[in-house]
Amino acid sequence: MLPKLINIREKFSKFTEQWTPKIIAECNGQQVKLAKLEGEFVWHDHAEEDELFFVVRGALTLKFDEGQITLRQGEMCVVPKATQHLPVAEEETWVMLFEPAKIKHTGDVQDERTVEECEWV
Amino acid sequence: MLPKLINIREKFSKFTEQWTPKIIAECNGQQVKLAKLEGEFVWHDHAEEDELFFVVRGALTLKFDEGQITLRQGEMCVVPKATQHLPVAEEETWVMLFEPAKIKHTGDVQDERTVEECEWV
Repeated sequence: MLPKLINIREKFSKFTEQWTPKIIAECNGQQVKLAKLEGEFVWHDHAEEDELFFVVRGALTLKFDEGQITLRQGEMCVVPKATQHLPVAEEETWVMLFEPAKIKHTGDVQDERTVEECEWV
Repeated sequence: MLPKLINIREKFSKFTEQWTPKIIAECNGQQVKLAKLEGEFVWHDHAEEDELFFVVRGALTLKFDEGQITLRQGEMCVVPKATQHLPVAEEETWVMLFEPAKIKHTGDVQDERTVEECEWV
C-alpha cells in the first residue's frame, strides 16, 4: 500500500471549528495537527512536551512571561516543555502543529475549549 | 529567553547544496530539516524511523516497490519505517523533513552524497 498523500489546504477545508486541533499525520509517535485560531487562548504549559507551531496563514502571537513573538506565514517556533505560553491571533490564523501524540492542547489547564481527544481529518 | 522565530524562506536562502539536509529546529528528539532536491537520489529505507516529507516548492516524486506518488507544494506524506523509497525531483524542489535526530538520510546505504552529520542553518 502506498503512503497517503496529504494536502494541507484540502485538510483545512474540512473543518471550521477554532481552537480544535485536527490530526493529519503520525510519525514516530509525534502527530501533525492543523488548527484554526482566533482570539486569545488560555495560559498553559506542557510539562513534558515541546510544541512546534508553524503558521500557514495569518499571524500568531505567542506570549511568554518574558515577552512575545509574532509568527507570520512560513514562520515557526518551538515552545520548549514546561514553558508557559498564551497563543493569540487577531484574525483567524491557520497553524500546523508538531507534538507528541499524547499531548493535551491546554496542558493541565481545563478550559471550556479543552479537547480531550483530537479527531483525524 | 524567548523561543527563536524561524523563517523558512530565510533559512532556504542560506544554502544552495542539493541533497544536503540542514537542521532548523529540534522538538521532542525529532528534527525539522530543509533540503533542496534535484534529480534522482538512491533507493534506501530507515529500519527504525518514519520520515515525513513536506513540499515547500516544486514537486517531489517518491517511488516505492508498489508504485509512486508525487507531492506538490503544500502536500506531505509519511514514509513508514523499513519502507524502501527513492526520492526524485525533475526540477529543484524544496522540502521540509521531520524525522528523528539520529536518522541518516540514506539509511544504511552509503552513497557519495551521504552526509554523516547534518549542519544547522
